[in-house]
Amino acid sequence: MKPYVLGIDIGGTNSVFGIVDARGTILASGSIKTQKYAAVEDYVNDLCNEILKLVKQEDVEDKIEGVGVGAPNGNYFNGTIEYSPNLPWKGIIPLAQMLENKLKLPVTITNDANAAAIGEMTYGAARGIKDFIMITLGTGVGSGIVVNGQLVYGHDGFAGELGHVIMRRQNGRLCGCGRTGCLEAYTSATGVARTAREFLEIRTDESSLRLLPIQDITSKDVYEAAVSGDKLAIEIFNYTGTMLGEAFADFVTFSSPKAIILFGGLARAGELIMRPIREAMEKNILNIFKGKTELLFSELKESDAAVLGASALGWEAK
Amino acid sequence: MKPYVLGIDIGGTNSVFGIVDARGTILASGSIKTQKYAAVEDYVNDLCNEILKLVKQEDVEDKIEGVGVGAPNGNYFNGTIEYSPNLPWKGIIPLAQMLENKLKLPVTITNDANAAAIGEMTYGAARGIKDFIMITLGTGVGSGIVVNGQLVYGHDGFAGELGHVIMRRQNGRLCGCGRTGCLEAYTSATGVARTAREFLEIRTDESSLRLLPIQDITSKDVYEAAVSGDKLAIEIFNYTGTMLGEAFADFVTFSSPKAIILFGGLARAGELIMRPIREAMEKNILNIFKGKTELLFSELKESDAAVLGASALGWEAK
Repeated sequence: MKPYVLGIDIGGTNSVFGIVDARGTILASGSIKTQKYAAVEDYVNDLCNEILKLVKQEDVEDKIEGVGVGAPNGNYFNGTIEYSPNLPWKGIIPLAQMLENKLKLPVTITNDANAAAIGEMTYGAARGIKDFIMITLGTGVGSGIVVNGQLVYGHDGFAGELGHVIMRRQNGRLCGCGRTGCLEAYTSATGVARTAREFLEIRTDESSLRLLPIQDITSKDVYEAAVSGDKLAIEIFNYTGTMLGEAFADFVTFSSPKAIILFGGLARAGELIMRPIREAMEKNILNIFKGKTELLFSELKESDAAVLGASALGWEAK
Repeated sequence: MKPYVLGIDIGGTNSVFGIVDARGTILASGSIKTQKYAAVEDYVNDLCNEILKLVKQEDVEDKIEGVGVGAPNGNYFNGTIEYSPNLPWKGIIPLAQMLENKLKLPVTITNDANAAAIGEMTYGAARGIKDFIMITLGTGVGSGIVVNGQLVYGHDGFAGELGHVIMRRQNGRLCGCGRTGCLEAYTSATGVARTAREFLEIRTDESSLRLLPIQDITSKDVYEAAVSGDKLAIEIFNYTGTMLGEAFADFVTFSSPKAIILFGGLARAGELIMRPIREAMEKNILNIFKGKTELLFSELKESDAAVLGASALGWEAK
């Protein structure tokens, strides 16, 4: 086995890449603007040129085992990106093949939350854990499920969309997926901001959040208000955490993981979100599972996590 | 590999056992009454004597590869039955060890729904399918989940309790597990009977079910009324199937199975239950999964399925 892998994280705005060793140290990294490229061919061209430049600069040309890519709607089985609503290119993109042609290295793709799970298993909080669920709390809510030490891809490569289990079957919020009542519509960063607006409109109690223009309130504003002791803001975290905990109790029913690992902006709220999650999870969980599943935070530095997660896939690329 | 395995299905009332070949043919079978034994030692003693008698009678003493056991709350990892509410013996029973001591053969245990899934994969509708979910619709609602061709046991051996995902978070029915709103409280045979009683009490429309004493109505009565065209009975199946379909849409979000396989009494209602399941599942499923997951019936004869499922585990016993 060669000593390095390449990790590429493709986001809607930026694409970040890095050269990573087996311990999860990023030797060097770079990025290009995803948004800039209307044609995927131009994107792949520039991306690969930047990567090859970095590889040459670090003098590791013959020392790279493989390439891992995390991309929205990335399909592990056929190396494509399929109908991603967050990327500029439509339809089915044979990205792994396109990258292999340029980089002359084996390339493996999966979606970003799956990459995060593999990253956590390879370098982070899930080392040595064979059954866990990774939950990424960001603009959306993503998940990567690991069973028997293997990522769950399902028959089509798209398993693990736990942000889209239905939490409210009546009068549920409209979700970006077009359905209503999804976990993501409540517990993503935008979901938290929506909860804030709902609470502020329906209720009359005081809150420092009332000083902000209601349409501009973000989850960060709610966090800051909660940290300063604002009761309404704390209740918003309780509401969000309670729904996550109820959802986690159902997730445990499925795969009985040793741990659920949280990653992303909202997870940074620490006990503000963890306490209600833990309480709701234990309150709602089936008896045989009580007290067995740990709630953990990701151990990967947030700025590195995307590249590390993607790179971890590079070790299994062939 | 030797040509036969032993399958033992332990139920609350009866324990059935059989000698099975690699194609799923039951060479010979027998049973004893589980209920009769207050002490598990006496039970194991009699069960093993009956089995050894059968083995001798069939002249297969040196031809048995292993023993598989399906039992409520059976734990695959440590070979125990843990706190089963449906069996006469309390606490943790080291059943695999007890059977090994008597039978001098390797014994593997799992719960009955997991055994059904393995049976289906080895001899039935799931042959060649690497990702599927088995749903058993009986007195309770059980499940066995297969991912990458492996049963999902979770970190503690108890994964796959999908009868206990929460379908109604408010005003949910009390479930046998002590919580409220579980899938099982609505879609088990007893759940269907409860729905019938609720519908009959709340509504005033005619139904042949009104001729029966309301407390005695069973899911079989509802089935028979529905088959005869009784509108209320048909609606009860629609209600039940719709909830199953909504639940299945969430299950797909988790493991994206190629198929969901139904087994048990309620599944025998055929299109009466399958049509609403299919419609609700497709209506509620995330776009990327639409039209991809098949709904199948078990292909194992119901009277043989329990022994076949348990026996299939015998091939991996060691």
